Order: sequence, then C-alpha cells, then structure tokens
Amino acid sequence: MTGSLTIIGTGPGNPGQTTPQALEAIAAGEMFFGYGPYLDRLDLRPDQSRIASDNREEIHRARAALDAATRGARVCVVSGGDPGVFAMAAAVCEAIETGPETWRRLDVKVLPGVTAMLAVAARAGAPLGHDFCAISLSDNLKPWELIERRLRAVAEAGLVIALYNPISKARPWQLPNAFKILREVLPVTTPVIFGRAVGRPDEHFAVAPLGEAHQQPADMATCIIIGSAETRIIERPGMDPLVYSPRGVGM
Amino acid sequence: MTGSLTIIGTGPGNPGQTTPQALEAIAAGEMFFGYGPYLDRLDLRPDQSRIASDNREEIHRARAALDAATRGARVCVVSGGDPGVFAMAAAVCEAIETGPETWRRLDVKVLPGVTAMLAVAARAGAPLGHDFCAISLSDNLKPWELIERRLRAVAEAGLVIALYNPISKARPWQLPNAFKILREVLPVTTPVIFGRAVGRPDEHFAVAPLGEAHQQPADMATCIIIGSAETRIIERPGMDPLVYSPRGVGM
Repeated sequence: MTGSLTIIGTGPGNPGQTTPQALEAIAAGEMFFGYGPYLDRLDLRPDQSRIASDNREEIHRARAALDAATRGARVCVVSGGDPGVFAMAAAVCEAIETGPETWRRLDVKVLPGVTAMLAVAARAGAPLGHDFCAISLSDNLKPWELIERRLRAVAEAGLVIALYNPISKARPWQLPNAFKILREVLPVTTPVIFGRAVGRPDEHFAVAPLGEAHQQPADMATCIIIGSAETRIIERPGMDPLVYSPRGVGM
Repeated sequence: MTGSLTIIGTGPGNPGQTTPQALEAIAAGEMFFGYGPYLDRLDLRPDQSRIASDNREEIHRARAALDAATRGARVCVVSGGDPGVFAMAAAVCEAIETGPETWRRLDVKVLPGVTAMLAVAARAGAPLGHDFCAISLSDNLKPWELIERRLRAVAEAGLVIALYNPISKARPWQLPNAFKILREVLPVTTPVIFGRAVGRPDEHFAVAPLGEAHQQPADMATCIIIGSAETRIIERPGMDPLVYSPRGVGM
C-alpha cells in the first residue's frame, strides 16, 4: 500500500478564496498535519484525523507527515495562504532531502493557493502592479544583517516590498528597525498597507505613510506592503482610497 | 441605477485553481472585458456579453470597462492569474486616477487569484520558500537599463527571481540578456525553472541550470523562476526532481 503527501494552502482565510483543487485534496485526505489555527479552518469528517502542532515546529511536522505517508496514509500538510511562500512546502522538501531514501519515492504534490500579499493587495487596489518582492522579517532562520541588506537593496532598486512574519512577541524590534531603514531610502509619504485577516470577519486593514507606519498595530498574521516611490493613492469620496503602483516607470 | 466593476483573476488556467469567489463574481457579471484567451476560459451565459481586446490595450480596455460600469452595468474585468500582478488592476487604477470624477464614485473590487509564479513553484517543489521577487521583463513600460539594474540588485541580495512576460516576438533579446547578467552574479549551476500553462493539458515544464537556461524555449506565457545560490535540487527515482529554496540561510 502506497501513501501520498499533498501540501495545500487554504488561502488567506476567506472560504471563497480556497481553490476547488485544494478542497478536493482535503476531501480525499486521511491525515492532516498543520498549525492548529490553519487546521481549524478545515471542515473535517470523523474519519479524517487532525495532528496539530505549533508554528515553530515545521520540520518535525514535515517528518511526521512524511513518515505517515510512507506507512500508507493519504496525508495532507496544511498551510494558510500558499504553501510555497514562507510555509510548509520548503520544510517538507528539506525533510525529504535530509531524510531516508523511501521519502524520495513518495508521491508528493504541492497545490498553490492565494498568498497573503495578493489578498492584501487586492483589498488596497493594485500596489503589486509593478515589480515587487516578498521578504520574511523573521530572523529565526537568517541573520538580521542580511534582512537589513536586502531591505535596502530592494527599496533602492524601486521594488514594492511585501513583508511576511513582520513582528511577534519574541521579535519586537525588527519591524520598527525595518521602517527606519526604509525611511532612509524612500520618501516618508510612501504608502504602507497593513492587512490582517483580510476578507474575514476580524479583518484589520489600514494605509499609513511610511513616516507614521511604526504607529500602526501589527502581529505575525499581518502582511505589510510598502510601496515604491512611484506608488500612488487615489482618494475616493465616502470610500477607502485606492493604492496602486503604476505599470510604467521612467519612460 | 448604479453599476459596479469587479477585477478578477482566473488563476493560472487549471479550472481547479479559480477561486469560488471569482466564479461567483463571474456568475453575477453582465459585461466581461479582457484579453480574448482569458475570456475564452469563462463559461458565459447567452445573457452575458464579452468584449475582447488585444493584450497591449490595457488602458483602453480599463476605460471602456469603467465607462460601462458608470452607465449602470455589472462589469467584470478579467485577467489570468492574479489581477494585481502585472495585470488589469493597476491599469484600472491608472484609468480612474486620470479619468472623470464619476469613476472615483464607482464600486470597484479586486478579487485575488493564484498568480503564475505560485503555480510554477508548486509544480517544481518550493523554489519560493525563501525571500523572492517578481519582475516583469517587458521594457514596453520601463527602460531596459532599469530592468538590468534590478536583476543585478536582487540576485546580489540573494532573492529568488520570478520573471513575468519574459520574451515575445517584439522583444527577442531581453531574456538572453537577463540570463547573461544573472550568470555574472549567480553560479552557472543555479536551477532555473520554466513553466507554461502549468496544470493545463498543454503544459510545458522544465528545469535547467542557469548556464544552459538560454537554450530553453519560452514565450510571453512562460513564467521563469531563477533560484538563488541556496536553491537546491533533490533527485528522485522515476520522478521529476524537487527544486526548493531552504527556509534558512547563513545561520
């Protein structure tokens, strides 16, 4: 008997943004591994089992899931957003590379999803309409100096920046520091977008100029999009403004 | 009577990757504006009208759609992938900013979708598992010198690079030039992923080392992901290799 491992993303949290392909994989799965709050979004049947773990335990979770698949189960590993963006797909690959030969023979599939920055961008208008990048602000797995260097390089190059994992109780000073670095490169009027749980009942969404961005609340689940010097705000009567990055520049 | 304008993305083309939210918006729409091949993916009813235009006419299409919405129609503007990534959402915002005041009063919504790089990445493994960027290689709306500078900056900064609009009949030399620049910064063994129509019957998918990447076929609909120096390949017996970028670096 041969098991399988499917790595899925539920999208940003609004059920209307989970792909039919992911829903089909969930219906076919037997064992579900993931961070508790992501597993909570699934509507599992009594015959489907749920193995929740903390969000700092990705590699252990990946190994447990691969082991269960090797024993013959149809396993789903569940991320929020897209599983390939700062999420479980890379952890599973890492576990396969360093694990037993049998894991390389497994049927492993990754199903894409709507990642947080796309949902936050859509809520705002079109801030990712020009060249952009996605950077995780967590220095758990890379040195802070490298993050600083990257922020400076991409801001100077004129890319819009989406920040993932911007802040947590264990990492309180990194986000204010990132804003400080960016203020050295970008105008203080540059639009900064904060989106959390976009499209869900507990949504938090705000736009602030870079010079005041450090005053906005944010947590691990917030995705922050920092415009380039070209990013614009269109005021609209009685509605949120539209924030967008023009397609063209310097022509 | 008040119209509305909803900007949707169909995802990469596999019907299982179009979100339920986008399908709902399509069902509710009356007039559909978009590039012909994207409109072809929709299953429109006889009472829904289809206004196709060429893919170089984004701003005219945006204005026509806004005008129709102002006259009271429920209008959908249709992109492939995500409408906010090198697609129609920015063109519509640009049209609103430069258009009549009435366009600012319209009910405009952007619904996110699965953008091409996420589908190509999922097909490959997890190449976007670490910091990455998305750059359009088209110099129709920005100078080529700026694109060169950006490629160099992001490659030196260690970001994985997703290239959109890599090549067309009118732009034949830009992609080979981009590879040349990247070979000056990255190892010739860096994995480069080519994905076209991923998840569709006419899928083209290939992985080549940067040193040989210029020999691979590509067109406007190809999304190309260039790894960082950290990106790895896991060979698997009888299956495509997995390509992934480790979550951690330099620790």
